[in-house]
Amino acid sequence: MSDQNPVFIPGPTNIPDRLRRAMQVQTQDHRSPAFVNTLAPVLKGCKTVFGTAKGEIITFPASGTGGWEAAITNTLSPGDKVLVARYGMFSHRWIDMCQRHGLDVQIIECPWGSGAPADRFQEALSADKDHSIKAVLVTHNETATGVRSDIAAVRGAMKASNHPALLMVDCVSSLGSMPFEMDTWGVDIAVSGSQKGFMLNTGMAILAVSPKALAMMETAKLPRTFFDFRDMMGANAKGGFPYTPPLQLIYGMAESLNMLFEEGLDNVYARHTRIAEGVRRAVAAWGLKLVAQTPDLYSDTVSAVFVPEGFDSNRLTERVFGTYGMSFGVGLGEMNGRAFRIGHLGSLTESMMLSGLATLEMAMADLNYPVKMGSGVIAAQEYYRATAKPVLAEKAA
Amino acid sequence: MSDQNPVFIPGPTNIPDRLRRAMQVQTQDHRSPAFVNTLAPVLKGCKTVFGTAKGEIITFPASGTGGWEAAITNTLSPGDKVLVARYGMFSHRWIDMCQRHGLDVQIIECPWGSGAPADRFQEALSADKDHSIKAVLVTHNETATGVRSDIAAVRGAMKASNHPALLMVDCVSSLGSMPFEMDTWGVDIAVSGSQKGFMLNTGMAILAVSPKALAMMETAKLPRTFFDFRDMMGANAKGGFPYTPPLQLIYGMAESLNMLFEEGLDNVYARHTRIAEGVRRAVAAWGLKLVAQTPDLYSDTVSAVFVPEGFDSNRLTERVFGTYGMSFGVGLGEMNGRAFRIGHLGSLTESMMLSGLATLEMAMADLNYPVKMGSGVIAAQEYYRATAKPVLAEKAA
Amino acid sequence: MSDQNPVFIPGPTNIPDRLRRAMQVQTQDHRSPAFVNTLAPVLKGCKTVFGTAKGEIITFPASGTGGWEAAITNTLSPGDKVLVARYGMFSHRWIDMCQRHGLDVQIIECPWGSGAPADRFQEALSADKDHSIKAVLVTHNETATGVRSDIAAVRGAMKASNHPALLMVDCVSSLGSMPFEMDTWGVDIAVSGSQKGFMLNTGMAILAVSPKALAMMETAKLPRTFFDFRDMMGANAKGGFPYTPPLQLIYGMAESLNMLFEEGLDNVYARHTRIAEGVRRAVAAWGLKLVAQTPDLYSDTVSAVFVPEGFDSNRLTERVFGTYGMSFGVGLGEMNGRAFRIGHLGSLTESMMLSGLATLEMAMADLNYPVKMGSGVIAAQEYYRATAKPVLAEKAA
Amino acid sequence: MSDQNPVFIPGPTNIPDRLRRAMQVQTQDHRSPAFVNTLAPVLKGCKTVFGTAKGEIITFPASGTGGWEAAITNTLSPGDKVLVARYGMFSHRWIDMCQRHGLDVQIIECPWGSGAPADRFQEALSADKDHSIKAVLVTHNETATGVRSDIAAVRGAMKASNHPALLMVDCVSSLGSMPFEMDTWGVDIAVSGSQKGFMLNTGMAILAVSPKALAMMETAKLPRTFFDFRDMMGANAKGGFPYTPPLQLIYGMAESLNMLFEEGLDNVYARHTRIAEGVRRAVAAWGLKLVAQTPDLYSDTVSAVFVPEGFDSNRLTERVFGTYGMSFGVGLGEMNGRAFRIGHLGSLTESMMLSGLATLEMAMADLNYPVKMGSGVIAAQEYYRATAKPVLAEKAA
Repeated sequence: MSDQNPVFIPGPTNIPDRLRRAMQVQTQDHRSPAFVNTLAPVLKGCKTVFGTAKGEIITFPASGTGGWEAAITNTLSPGDKVLVARYGMFSHRWIDMCQRHGLDVQIIECPWGSGAPADRFQEALSADKDHSIKAVLVTHNETATGVRSDIAAVRGAMKASNHPALLMVDCVSSLGSMPFEMDTWGVDIAVSGSQKGFMLNTGMAILAVSPKALAMMETAKLPRTFFDFRDMMGANAKGGFPYTPPLQLIYGMAESLNMLFEEGLDNVYARHTRIAEGVRRAVAAWGLKLVAQTPDLYSDTVSAVFVPEGFDSNRLTERVFGTYGMSFGVGLGEMNGRAFRIGHLGSLTESMMLSGLATLEMAMADLNYPVKMGSGVIAAQEYYRATAKPVLAEKAA
Repeated sequence: MSDQNPVFIPGPTNIPDRLRRAMQVQTQDHRSPAFVNTLAPVLKGCKTVFGTAKGEIITFPASGTGGWEAAITNTLSPGDKVLVARYGMFSHRWIDMCQRHGLDVQIIECPWGSGAPADRFQEALSADKDHSIKAVLVTHNETATGVRSDIAAVRGAMKASNHPALLMVDCVSSLGSMPFEMDTWGVDIAVSGSQKGFMLNTGMAILAVSPKALAMMETAKLPRTFFDFRDMMGANAKGGFPYTPPLQLIYGMAESLNMLFEEGLDNVYARHTRIAEGVRRAVAAWGLKLVAQTPDLYSDTVSAVFVPEGFDSNRLTERVFGTYGMSFGVGLGEMNGRAFRIGHLGSLTESMMLSGLATLEMAMADLNYPVKMGSGVIAAQEYYRATAKPVLAEKAA
Repeated sequence: MSDQNPVFIPGPTNIPDRLRRAMQVQTQDHRSPAFVNTLAPVLKGCKTVFGTAKGEIITFPASGTGGWEAAITNTLSPGDKVLVARYGMFSHRWIDMCQRHGLDVQIIECPWGSGAPADRFQEALSADKDHSIKAVLVTHNETATGVRSDIAAVRGAMKASNHPALLMVDCVSSLGSMPFEMDTWGVDIAVSGSQKGFMLNTGMAILAVSPKALAMMETAKLPRTFFDFRDMMGANAKGGFPYTPPLQLIYGMAESLNMLFEEGLDNVYARHTRIAEGVRRAVAAWGLKLVAQTPDLYSDTVSAVFVPEGFDSNRLTERVFGTYGMSFGVGLGEMNGRAFRIGHLGSLTESMMLSGLATLEMAMADLNYPVKMGSGVIAAQEYYRATAKPVLAEKAA
Repeated sequence: MSDQNPVFIPGPTNIPDRLRRAMQVQTQDHRSPAFVNTLAPVLKGCKTVFGTAKGEIITFPASGTGGWEAAITNTLSPGDKVLVARYGMFSHRWIDMCQRHGLDVQIIECPWGSGAPADRFQEALSADKDHSIKAVLVTHNETATGVRSDIAAVRGAMKASNHPALLMVDCVSSLGSMPFEMDTWGVDIAVSGSQKGFMLNTGMAILAVSPKALAMMETAKLPRTFFDFRDMMGANAKGGFPYTPPLQLIYGMAESLNMLFEEGLDNVYARHTRIAEGVRRAVAAWGLKLVAQTPDLYSDTVSAVFVPEGFDSNRLTERVFGTYGMSFGVGLGEMNGRAFRIGHLGSLTESMMLSGLATLEMAMADLNYPVKMGSGVIAAQEYYRATAKPVLAEKAA
């Protein structure tokens, strides 16, 4: 009966009941005049979450990976140069995609656990006198390492080198959970998905695209049809979709936006910070180290945690799943075996988080980790107590 | 967003997803020839859970309280004497109902925290030379005190005094969670409901009735129509219901029985014992005392826990609900203010239970309880670890 | 795959998706301070549907039959005389219940197909010089015959004879579908349920009780506990329930009331009239006769239809269910074999109704009814066309 | 309240309750060892529906359009020649996609309403002496015209000309509703989706790929990452997904396959033929003509119907939606204004279909079509009666 336990993977998140209900929509005609009333508020609401007034929202029935592909194929042409820093599995995968699509990828290698290196970006961009670099690609929240990068600093580097490249940002595992300011940060394309901060089923890629990026879709030569911005924007403008839309997810998005706005985005972000900080206190109490190198890099949606020397993190995630029926994230790529990940995004309460920490402790004890039973739970309890706010008032309202 | 937390009230329980889905049935014609195929397996399956081959299963769209009323009105007449022991709120309420229905109630007063006193029953029954006592009423699991009584011992007392009274048992909060052996124990009417061990929505009273009790329905003079066994049995026998049946709950019951039988009733009971014992270890670690006086009385579905002298248990349940969004049972009746209750029945995992204990600890600390933070969690963790069995095998099967 | 067909039984109705979702509520603590916020709006909203400002709303987890039992047991004492007219199965059953509860039932026998005979009530009441009649019981909408009675006329008869008896009305299959004006009509107790005009699962009896009727609950001697108004009102007043409440149905009621009020009660009633009139046009086109004797008696929620001489209506309902997977109401009581019933209440569209009529025609043809194929459908189509109002505007709003 | 009407668009279909429930799955860890047990039976079951033992099943979180893109990008290189016949909107769109991806498309223009021209394919292939044509693309069921083409005949043409090109088939709106025999017909890639014959939410593209087609993925130079067969097959082989999988749809697919196999694929196809033939009888009775030119081309999932001269089919679909709240398919492309479409695929009963026909008739009458009211309904009723089989037995089983 372990399917009643929450998951602590870094997405998809636990889906709140309210959203599960919202997605239970019978088939409706997506070519009817009513469809536009369903879609339009979602596109509008997403702008607020992305922090953009100027950008266009474009969605596809796909995962975030599809969103990345849409971002590059609609703006770039074979042989175009892009600048990317690799500091985790997801930045790595985006690089791999660019290469497979025939782009010339200039890679800045960084240690996993670090974030986007604004200074090295600036160096590379300043050296690119003829502006052959067409786009800078940054992973906002590197889900493999629990690192959040400073996007404003990257834009700062671009400005300092007076470089006209597009700034594309993967915010799949940050949007709706941590602040994102597309216009303020000067992001040209931001890519996210339905199954993280929006707490829905997987199946919708969501992009916000600046006017500057949109202007490139007419000249971009990378082939695309399913992910073509023009088809989607043209159809959306007439209240439709270029092919069958994921109706249930669109209804889910509408309700997810309602939930986020009712709570208030700032409160949503503060809630994520609080839940995450409790986890970090627990990790410290266990005597373990985060993969993220410095506090300014700590992600509020996922913590990657090194296991002690001589232990295999895969044994831990297997143990906690196989014995206690609870899912945590495995270490990915070069962190496989060395670190495990605690997802703490979406609609989590402190009580749910404590169940995750308490269960991890049991599995660690089973595997003879040098960790004091209860120590992490207590550290989190103390933090959550000290920062608790009454929930009754809001329930009664 | 606290509605994602499990509840730890002693019923209704957290409803497993599988059962929530099973209850999502569109309207069907309850007068169609297909209805019998829906109802019959439920009646048959319930026999197994009640532990009866001879008894009839009779259900009503009502709560357990309605089941009590059905039990007495179908077998007794105004002025009939019944023998009842009062040792908690639910035994008290059944007494109150009997009195309001014009029965002559002989009450054995017992301290709350004790169970059904077989010896005092035997004394009273032996003294009842002319067999004016028509029924002995016993609450199997007193939800107000967390006390499980020994029903076989009560039947033993009846046998020893060679008394022909009916034995009626309230097993609302025990059936499907703790062993119940109607035939072996010689129970004449057992009363339960859909929202406890069956883990469903509230709304169905479920009774098992012995042939001896059934024989009395022709002579019983207490008025009843909605709760009349004859109407219900007559209609059921023809594959119908005497009025509109609670279709969704009937489908829910079918699936609940599937779940219980797939796991195996003995495994279900063992799981409840394990989860409960973890709670009891935590209570001991906190230095608190159970209301149940002795270990043989400990209930595996609910633990009532005394707060320390000078504390008000209502402040605790208010705090944990108002600040952390988690529900525990308040102290009822004479336990109000003195004890709170931890429900641990239905489909709970150890991880869920740990979240309850950890959250209670926070609230106790907030109220300056002399309780060591983490102590209860650690005691439960150690116990759950020591008794863990892999869940993966069953999931993969 | 016939479970996709709508049902055309006179309740429970087809449940709209919106209400199915509303009832998907996880367990919440009914003893928490938040519960009152769930219950109170339901009680308030029901007042509007019953048409009462003065009455109290009292609900029980039961069917409408339980509501009847609550009505009589809370106001009457054994031996009390009640006056009832019998003109169908449901008025008959209420009489039977009164007799089984020891009331002295003065029955006015009326032909099935007629309604409450105000003149004969007046005669009986005028003859009751010493006011031994304590209550007049009327079935507003006799579901067995498709007859709606004139409740105001019954009250008129009571006034004309200056009689102080209570007026109790069964509005189970009318409330929320046809106008009901408790205060204006001088109804003392009105009894309904969740599964008809409220379009929900079966399982909640809903009563509205006048101050005059409430005053009698202190002196009424019929025994009751589960259905006791005092317990329920006392608990409701404190934001609670005297036993476990049917939480999911309470949430369902809240949303059902939202739906009714959003559409507007007058529009809801007009919609029922329109759908019903299409059915009546079809029946006329088939050359069949309604059981209801005159147009003023026609019910807008159910039509009972005589089959031609020499035919057995049970063969028809069996055929249409067994061959086409569609449910219609069988003839009840003395109408069994002679009439079948078409339920047309709740959330039905003209298209759904046409599918019912078309399917009935197929089954009638299969059984060699002297009915012209398509004739009923065409009559209904013409009527629905002539009375159609655009739906698009409301959807787009 | 028109959302209770079935839709009669040619997909997405009305979703059976059983499948709606199956898709209500909480988040699970797609990287857990249990995920393979969820995915593997779906891949296996799909083979049966596609009629392939040798082919591999590959799915993507996308619509059918994404499936097309996967088919061409994994097997072809820029400049490759493909041979396609254009006889409707969907064959047209596939051509457009090929052109946008830089393929050299040799188009056989055919009148809309005709099907894949095996003879002209043979002519073209025979003329292609140096085998520069790498693939033949055929739309099995052209949803815009209601035409089903003979795939075996196309393969026959390829064999006759001894041509080694791949045969790619769009079976989005036919698979699971009409017979499909991949291996027998020699299909190399068949593309379908979740929202048609599988009766699920939109969001999963499903492909079956022959060993011959798979062999080309190593040499194919069209860029792709999201839709890369290698990534997907590699991950699937290890029990995973290359990115976040659409978990709820995978569970839905498992249950959809259960439904199809329980009914039996042959019975599913026969059911579609029967429902479709009733529609065609109605169309004939109205005096209207199908777009499909000859009976051998008639689709069992969608009928495109010409409106009479001087009428605009868009007015009809607007009227029926705006006034009666029912959705039919608009005419697409060159059929826009000239034809409307009746979708009759998925889980439909004859009663549902009759409601569609009856409602269409009302709208046609509103617009003064020269159509006799009731004529189509009667024609369908007579056909459905004559071909009815009892449903009760299966329900009772």
